[in-house]
Amino acid sequence: MNVTEYMQTLGQQARQASRAISRAAPGDKVNALLAMASAIDSSRTELAAANQQDLQNGRDKGLEPAMIDRLALTPAGIDTMIESLHQVAGLADPVGEITDMSYRPSGIQVGKMRVPLGVVGIIYESRPNVTIEAASLCLKSGNACILRGGSEAIHSNKALAKCIQQGLEQVGLPKHAVQVVETTDRAAVGELITMQDYVDVIIPRGGKGLIERISRDAKVLVIKHLDGICHVYIDDQADIEKAVKVAFNAKCHRYGTCNTMETLLVHQGIAATVLPQLAEKYQKEKVELRGCEATRQILTDATPATEQDWATEYLAPVLSVKIVEDMNEAIDHITRFSSAHTESIITENHTRAMKFVREVDSSSVMINASTRFADGFEYGLGAEIGISTDKIHARGPVGLEGLTSQKYIVLGDGHIRQ
Amino acid sequence: MNVTEYMQTLGQQARQASRAISRAAPGDKVNALLAMASAIDSSRTELAAANQQDLQNGRDKGLEPAMIDRLALTPAGIDTMIESLHQVAGLADPVGEITDMSYRPSGIQVGKMRVPLGVVGIIYESRPNVTIEAASLCLKSGNACILRGGSEAIHSNKALAKCIQQGLEQVGLPKHAVQVVETTDRAAVGELITMQDYVDVIIPRGGKGLIERISRDAKVLVIKHLDGICHVYIDDQADIEKAVKVAFNAKCHRYGTCNTMETLLVHQGIAATVLPQLAEKYQKEKVELRGCEATRQILTDATPATEQDWATEYLAPVLSVKIVEDMNEAIDHITRFSSAHTESIITENHTRAMKFVREVDSSSVMINASTRFADGFEYGLGAEIGISTDKIHARGPVGLEGLTSQKYIVLGDGHIRQ
Repeated sequence: MNVTEYMQTLGQQARQASRAISRAAPGDKVNALLAMASAIDSSRTELAAANQQDLQNGRDKGLEPAMIDRLALTPAGIDTMIESLHQVAGLADPVGEITDMSYRPSGIQVGKMRVPLGVVGIIYESRPNVTIEAASLCLKSGNACILRGGSEAIHSNKALAKCIQQGLEQVGLPKHAVQVVETTDRAAVGELITMQDYVDVIIPRGGKGLIERISRDAKVLVIKHLDGICHVYIDDQADIEKAVKVAFNAKCHRYGTCNTMETLLVHQGIAATVLPQLAEKYQKEKVELRGCEATRQILTDATPATEQDWATEYLAPVLSVKIVEDMNEAIDHITRFSSAHTESIITENHTRAMKFVREVDSSSVMINASTRFADGFEYGLGAEIGISTDKIHARGPVGLEGLTSQKYIVLGDGHIRQ
Repeated sequence: MNVTEYMQTLGQQARQASRAISRAAPGDKVNALLAMASAIDSSRTELAAANQQDLQNGRDKGLEPAMIDRLALTPAGIDTMIESLHQVAGLADPVGEITDMSYRPSGIQVGKMRVPLGVVGIIYESRPNVTIEAASLCLKSGNACILRGGSEAIHSNKALAKCIQQGLEQVGLPKHAVQVVETTDRAAVGELITMQDYVDVIIPRGGKGLIERISRDAKVLVIKHLDGICHVYIDDQADIEKAVKVAFNAKCHRYGTCNTMETLLVHQGIAATVLPQLAEKYQKEKVELRGCEATRQILTDATPATEQDWATEYLAPVLSVKIVEDMNEAIDHITRFSSAHTESIITENHTRAMKFVREVDSSSVMINASTRFADGFEYGLGAEIGISTDKIHARGPVGLEGLTSQKYIVLGDGHIRQ
């Protein structure tokens, strides 16, 4: 069977399974998730063996230690998977939720019912735990899914898929509701993102290159998670203590996450006060500062920031700093360089805070809070399959709601249109 | 200037204007809409002259009378435009609406704010009143728009655009917030649907061919309005009187609309009772009936329905009728042939009604009500720019909400992530 035929088969199977899974009773989905957790727990030996194969292949191919690290399925990692399956099982079932029912002058009652999207294709890189996260969230939200993990993790993913399908079959749900692509042929991705008849939405998780390539070639809607060039703007009416605390946390809490601040914007009226205090804290953490000219007059150790710096997601202990004339200049800078992920203003001035929130067009906009809060768990979604930087359908952290849509429902009693 | 350059210029202008329009004060938008209405009222002579040109060209090109009809801008039609501008002005402004604010354990407050999509491209056929509907809904929802009407209506649309831009400028809003494509070159559509940098979403309004072509070639998200192959299913536990009333209304209230019933499904247990009563009413309206074999044993006058009939949107006094064994067969038939627009069940049985609503995956699903209710005005949206048969972002009638999205907002008081 060639790759096209193989993927078409997966697609047909997914489409068929999606009908059953969209109608599955909430209790059956919960039981399937718990059965998956049990299956994983009792397959620790097999999972370790499969992961060992991936790790060995990875070392043979000379993968970087960081990659090997992300690939490893430790006993603690397996515990986390089991825990996360229990957590998703415990979330409220979003499917069938009815909202906004109201009577219309004609006498009909109109409202909305939450429904699954159908078939979700998820394309991700090495970490095998994504297989469990993606499968559990898609199942809970009533979607079938086709999972295309990194080729380095193929044996681990196949072993996990076995546990998942075992869990599904145990409660009488179709095993094709969750399918792992078992070929490492890259052409499989090309097929997956163009099977409009069988796939309703693609969620790519991975580097910018992967996501750009998929967005370019896809014929199916893509929920994109692009890079996070996040900004904090310190207004001249900011509380200095809060400003220092938040700007430090936004950069130094973790460097490699997409909600980490990459550029700090500071009002000219407060720069001389706040920047030295912040620089001292950054210095202790060995954060390299790159500043505009005005910044470098205050922080003489900072290296000059180039145009390129404003457009870079460092994912590292590097921060670019720019002094702005006023909030409008800050918003203009953000509009030009932000990746529309997350921005925060630090100010005590109500009018400016609300103007910032209204005018900054990013998936999360914050007042006096660290950008690090942009996260499905912190927002109370219970889980997250990614953070969308798109404007349509789902914006910001995507949880169960982002994996569903709403249809209109109309209740009448023999009503006809006059 | 060639078409590519021309469209790029429109795109850049729209993108720039969209920033101002997204932040415009609600009162300014209301005043702009009212100013547009006044401008149209005082330009009746110019509008009539421009429309006369289109009508003359249409007749010279041998357009069908129905097309000429749709093209005509009568004094009453102009009154309706003015009235609709006043109506949109009176709708609640969706931009900036804050919902779902709640405190999280960390102390931050998380909620959502409704925001415009950015730049909307609308591609439509001959009726010039769409120019006013589209412009007013986009403006009210804070979007800039690029309008590409039918080439037959080019003079009318240009004259209307003048009134629209006059209204915008009168209140100090950028006139490029609404732009009409002034070339009839078909290449302009190809440019519009692929300008990812300048256009956020495309809404095509028109025939199936137009929409399929746009969906195939677009690089920008398309909110599709495909055909309406709507079904009514009469269950064996239906109230006969309601069934006859609704099934008659769903077919005969208007033939040419997308929410008109095209296929009637009838439970075998009630067919012999309900079909003759319905057939008598249809006969008076000269509705041609095409039936399955079982139907033709009851309605001997009906012609045989082919596979093609189940997949056809007649938009005419023709109805296909199928007798099914039970509701599951009805749902299977709908799943296979429906265009996912609107379906209705007629039954007094609560369990079946709720199962039908849950399992039928269409943009509107109804109980004991005519499919003709699937309409933005009937649903209370105040206005409608189309009916989406897509699953993502907007489903069913698309009003101001469908032209917006939501971003997350986070309110803190110096909160940092632990």
